[in-house]
Amino acid sequence: MTTILTDEDLTGGAIMQIAIDAVEIAMRQKAHGRMVSPPRHHVTFPGKGDLVFTVGGVQDGAPTAGFRVYDTFNGSHHSQIVAVWSTETAKLEGIVIGEKLGAIRTGAIGGVAIRHLSDADATTAGVVGSGLQARMQLVAAAAVRRLSHVRVYSRSEANRKAFAEEMQRYLGLDIEAVDSAAEAVRGADIVICATSSSVPVLRAKDLKPGAHINTVGPKTIEGHEIDLDVAKMAHRIATDSPEQMRAYASPFFLAGTSHEERVEDLASIIAENTPWHRSADATTLFCSIGLAGTEVAVAAAILKQRG
Amino acid sequence: MTTILTDEDLTGGAIMQIAIDAVEIAMRQKAHGRMVSPPRHHVTFPGKGDLVFTVGGVQDGAPTAGFRVYDTFNGSHHSQIVAVWSTETAKLEGIVIGEKLGAIRTGAIGGVAIRHLSDADATTAGVVGSGLQARMQLVAAAAVRRLSHVRVYSRSEANRKAFAEEMQRYLGLDIEAVDSAAEAVRGADIVICATSSSVPVLRAKDLKPGAHINTVGPKTIEGHEIDLDVAKMAHRIATDSPEQMRAYASPFFLAGTSHEERVEDLASIIAENTPWHRSADATTLFCSIGLAGTEVAVAAAILKQRG
Repeated sequence: MTTILTDEDLTGGAIMQIAIDAVEIAMRQKAHGRMVSPPRHHVTFPGKGDLVFTVGGVQDGAPTAGFRVYDTFNGSHHSQIVAVWSTETAKLEGIVIGEKLGAIRTGAIGGVAIRHLSDADATTAGVVGSGLQARMQLVAAAAVRRLSHVRVYSRSEANRKAFAEEMQRYLGLDIEAVDSAAEAVRGADIVICATSSSVPVLRAKDLKPGAHINTVGPKTIEGHEIDLDVAKMAHRIATDSPEQMRAYASPFFLAGTSHEERVEDLASIIAENTPWHRSADATTLFCSIGLAGTEVAVAAAILKQRG
Repeated sequence: MTTILTDEDLTGGAIMQIAIDAVEIAMRQKAHGRMVSPPRHHVTFPGKGDLVFTVGGVQDGAPTAGFRVYDTFNGSHHSQIVAVWSTETAKLEGIVIGEKLGAIRTGAIGGVAIRHLSDADATTAGVVGSGLQARMQLVAAAAVRRLSHVRVYSRSEANRKAFAEEMQRYLGLDIEAVDSAAEAVRGADIVICATSSSVPVLRAKDLKPGAHINTVGPKTIEGHEIDLDVAKMAHRIATDSPEQMRAYASPFFLAGTSHEERVEDLASIIAENTPWHRSADATTLFCSIGLAGTEVAVAAAILKQRG
């Protein structure tokens, strides 16, 4: 019988750590040309929407293949499906149904970026946004750094207070809701920007030199949650998928600027044999895209861990 | 909770009838341009094999979207997945995992062909082949015609005897295992050819004028289970997917012959308002291809019937 997991099964403190390690392994294989990750495939149902497939897998270690599919139909129900095969045995290892795996995967990508780009001694984090992805990014940050204090801002006072209370309980950290984005990120070693804002909510002048920033929300020319001066301030800029960044229907917010060619592939940074010696004031920026194939890698790791 | 069905759930006498009706509805919509059925989509995992996706759905009635995926990896395990969404509500209606749905679907396509092409008073059937698809085609034939006597031939005496015993019990019909293909089909109103043979096992001289033939096995120029003279004998030749027939990597067995342009789309035959008056000696031939999107239609109907 094929293992089927749903959102209720994706719980427990270890799951983000498992996901981060799975994404890191996939990215190392990507850097060596051992990850299959072709462009997305859409099929349109006229007047209704699309089914969108991302297919992918890793070729080394436990070689896997699989896909994620989601719909863009109008309606309140939405279910993603991720399926994983072993390419060694042809066995369908399992299926994960729901919205949560994708959120954990995006959090885990952010966690890998924080692990490899932020100050190894980072203890403070500033969060802008209070939705599911702001939570996942913070869980991921706490999985790779010994955080002691976190500040959070979002437009709704109720939401930022709820975020602070829930995440304080969940992570056992001191978390404070504050009244502005500037206050949330002031002096923070790690900055998480995870909003739906298409006007900048984060500016360079508010950031501590040497901070690491994850931008998870909008980042096209038409709308971006961080100001262009944050890119200017950054010593290094990375993304998890330069390929998808260039394929955006609406151009990436750094397109046409001098910063565009500075964007590095996080996979290459991770796989570098010569470690980067981060200076204390080296600000770093990670632009989260959602590398195709990482959903399959995370699902494979979760299925394997469950036996 | 999303409904998950496996092979064990796809049982019961009614299931083939449900599948035949679902395929017929899908084909009627195809004839009116209301079925979404794009070409297959392959992703290759180097050295391992492919994941192959067929996506499709119907736009009228209960509009649905979905896909089937299967693997070509080396190994003894193989699991197909079929998933169905309502495009009205965006709800994932369910997932069917296993090999059986595809077999039922191919049987149902054969059943639709028999319903619309064979003599309405057909009572005898000749079967060449004794595998899963030979069984499914006979179940489908019995669902649309009042059969009284069936003969079966396959190379292995043990297999054809097992087929006769099992199907006699399952369908409550008089089924006889015979010693040659010619003997199996002699005088039969309905002929099912479902072998893996790439050399012809069925010839025109063995067939009764006015018979209807379903060919389910190989039918490329390089290898085909029925002789070209069966096409010559046929008054009408139809297939479920002229599009896929023309897209075969290895050309269709009628390619380049005068019969190629006579091949009709079964969907158009079904949807014709002017009924065809079948003469007693009008031999008909149906070439089963496996119209993309019909797996989704059959899965949708089975999921709906289970509530």
